Amino acid sequence: MSSAESALLTDLYQLTMLQAYHDQGMNDIAAFEFFVRKMPENRNFLLAAGLEQAVEFLENLHFTAEELSWLASCGHFRRDFVDSLEGLRFTGEVHAMPEGTVFFPDEPILRVIAPIREAQLVESRLINLLQFQTLIASKAARSVLAAPGKLLVDFGLRRAHGAEAGLLSARASYLAGFTGSATVLAGMRWGIPLYGTMAHSFIQAHSIEVEAFEHFARAFPQNCVLLIDTYDTEAAAAKLIPLARKLAADGISIRAVRIDSGDLGEHARRVRRILDDAGLNDVEIFASSSLDEYKLRELVASAPIDGFGVGTRMNTSADKPYLDCAYKLQEYAGRPRRKRSEGKATWPGRKQVYRRCGAAGTFSEDLLTTDDDVQSGVPLILQVMKEGRRMAPPLNLAEIRDYAAVQLAALPEPLRGLEPAPAYPVTVSYRLRELARFVDASIEVG
Amino acid sequence: MSSAESALLTDLYQLTMLQAYHDQGMNDIAAFEFFVRKMPENRNFLLAAGLEQAVEFLENLHFTAEELSWLASCGHFRRDFVDSLEGLRFTGEVHAMPEGTVFFPDEPILRVIAPIREAQLVESRLINLLQFQTLIASKAARSVLAAPGKLLVDFGLRRAHGAEAGLLSARASYLAGFTGSATVLAGMRWGIPLYGTMAHSFIQAHSIEVEAFEHFARAFPQNCVLLIDTYDTEAAAAKLIPLARKLAADGISIRAVRIDSGDLGEHARRVRRILDDAGLNDVEIFASSSLDEYKLRELVASAPIDGFGVGTRMNTSADKPYLDCAYKLQEYAGRPRRKRSEGKATWPGRKQVYRRCGAAGTFSEDLLTTDDDVQSGVPLILQVMKEGRRMAPPLNLAEIRDYAAVQLAALPEPLRGLEPAPAYPVTVSYRLRELARFVDASIEVG
Repeated sequence: MSSAESALLTDLYQLTMLQAYHDQGMNDIAAFEFFVRKMPENRNFLLAAGLEQAVEFLENLHFTAEELSWLASCGHFRRDFVDSLEGLRFTGEVHAMPEGTVFFPDEPILRVIAPIREAQLVESRLINLLQFQTLIASKAARSVLAAPGKLLVDFGLRRAHGAEAGLLSARASYLAGFTGSATVLAGMRWGIPLYGTMAHSFIQAHSIEVEAFEHFARAFPQNCVLLIDTYDTEAAAAKLIPLARKLAADGISIRAVRIDSGDLGEHARRVRRILDDAGLNDVEIFASSSLDEYKLRELVASAPIDGFGVGTRMNTSADKPYLDCAYKLQEYAGRPRRKRSEGKATWPGRKQVYRRCGAAGTFSEDLLTTDDDVQSGVPLILQVMKEGRRMAPPLNLAEIRDYAAVQLAALPEPLRGLEPAPAYPVTVSYRLRELARFVDASIEVG
Repeated sequence: MSSAESALLTDLYQLTMLQAYHDQGMNDIAAFEFFVRKMPENRNFLLAAGLEQAVEFLENLHFTAEELSWLASCGHFRRDFVDSLEGLRFTGEVHAMPEGTVFFPDEPILRVIAPIREAQLVESRLINLLQFQTLIASKAARSVLAAPGKLLVDFGLRRAHGAEAGLLSARASYLAGFTGSATVLAGMRWGIPLYGTMAHSFIQAHSIEVEAFEHFARAFPQNCVLLIDTYDTEAAAAKLIPLARKLAADGISIRAVRIDSGDLGEHARRVRRILDDAGLNDVEIFASSSLDEYKLRELVASAPIDGFGVGTRMNTSADKPYLDCAYKLQEYAGRPRRKRSEGKATWPGRKQVYRRCGAAGTFSEDLLTTDDDVQSGVPLILQVMKEGRRMAPPLNLAEIRDYAAVQLAALPEPLRGLEPAPAYPVTVSYRLRELARFVDASIEVG
């Protein structure tokens, strides 16, 4: 079994709490909600992602014999408690915003309703899955909005934080509107279109640069993209002119060049001139190297670049590599609950978000309320699991990507820009405020 | 097979280059080296980590039948090339700095010597493994130096970037000197000591806070740590006084309290006074919430806190979530190679690092030279794989951690602090400079 599915992908305190619940016979129904507490600086909206992996994890939840035997021997737990874990499966409900939904702080994007031991155990992995893909989808969407119509390829596997981060950031960025990824396994797993050309090492392994170009062109006659910055970018571009004639005689055309160092805009302008002067107007220019949405915006405005490889800064969400998010108990045994720790208070109970739209379908306002308080607008949270099983087959990633594109198109204009915009209005309903007051008054902390 | 071991955990361009090499019959021996180009701001040294996972990956390298069949059908490759991958295994050598070695920019921490197809294919995953663990070990070491003698626990699974990031950051932080982790699977896999108590939800699921405390104490009579900030931190501390008396009658003592919100230093001072005034001097105080090395330094100096849970900011290396690092071709077919792209030039050939020490064994200077240039000092790069197999059984993580502690103890004083210090001296030997000049003169870019 892959570690990604292990029930031990959890914090020790989940299991210590479970032993205490076991001892007390506590296992009533709990409702936990996952939400982001605060909009990060330099973000105007968030894009929900990671639900599919969360559902898969819940559907497969169980302890293996090896894990149980290790738990019994690790010195932290009693045998009778470990035995109680043997048959543990996820038997509850999940309600969630579909992946690709635009959302804002305090709005739950996932609710688990299940016996508290099940709902508690899965906290660590659910946060781990939802925060990361949401983080990356939200970051990647900014590049998509900053470079409309451009080819955008995820290049970030190597500096992503491990294998799963590489794979899931390929998924999250494609979902947000990237054209594809360089990560081969992500292509195999989710059908994400793959892009890739050559590294500098390919040029260096040849003694003569233009021989490397020709070898590559003959290996990929339909899809020849050449990396031209290993030694001297403009000199390499000039070498393509005779090479293009030679290849044309064999029916091969150079599709694009890639520039990966120096002043990308300046090199692109010079290379464009060299290629155009030789009639190679169809050869596209692709750029990479330390790109993010700000650099994309600048290059789109100033340089003849047709596509971009975006890696590290997107895949690590480098300007803000985490979300201030939580998975909090909002109800136990039929009673709404609320945490009141300083700076970390939560809205109690099961909640729903209604989205209201203005002219042309643009989002105008959200209402956060209790889940039994029907209001006007589109309810964003839908039930997706029942009795531990998903209620519909998984969507394919292309469908989710289409939905995300519709969501992004409905963003109010100021939120689409890269600069911080006034916060989108999320109103907390009278009913929810009343419930919070009621819960505060009834908490017996004595 | 877990995705962490897949040969398709690579960038598409590795495979396109392999097809071009296949077509040309190119497969001579290549030497690639992994190194960090530039010291991140706010770091004075780096701590090598991730070699064990890199070696595991290389030992297991192969394509599954399912992967080969997908490659043949994905539209990017020819069948004859895909067939050539069937028997591909890693047959080369690896030379590396042991995990836990302190190192600096331009110093290779790993060299692969193998037929170029093998050495090229593994680039993406080797960078992915080495950069992430090195990033986290280097960040975590700063907390270790800032809080000497304190209990430091990795709390970061939930906001790490996926499952593997959670596991490997537990490993990297323990290697760097953390006391343990909350991540259960990391405990099972590497024997990392586990720590954990309870979440706010445990308190909230009970109607009366002190009942939650008592239930937990009875479930963990040997290891009772109580979370006291759910409603009112000092009020909760006061409730422990009668509870401690009641539990003492049953031979149970409260081991520690945890504070997770508000002004941690101020709460800790007040709680310490409340506990001490009641004779509960042995109850320790543990703090968590948005901690990093700067906050630790401040709290260690000003508050009676015995231990810390450090999560998100360490596990994502939040102030710098990536390293400017590369895996570069330095030699092919017996000839040294060098990339000269602007801002990304490399030192050619196979290299060695000699470390010189001063009084009391403190590191004083490193010399970067060619690997056949024997010099005074300790050579840091050792051979670890031969003909595709490791040359010695894996070290256990505790041994690596002990070695890292010795390395950190030998750091010159200014590098041990949190503020940027003058760069540690790394001298490039005359011989290596001569080699670079020779390579530049002999590159035929025409």
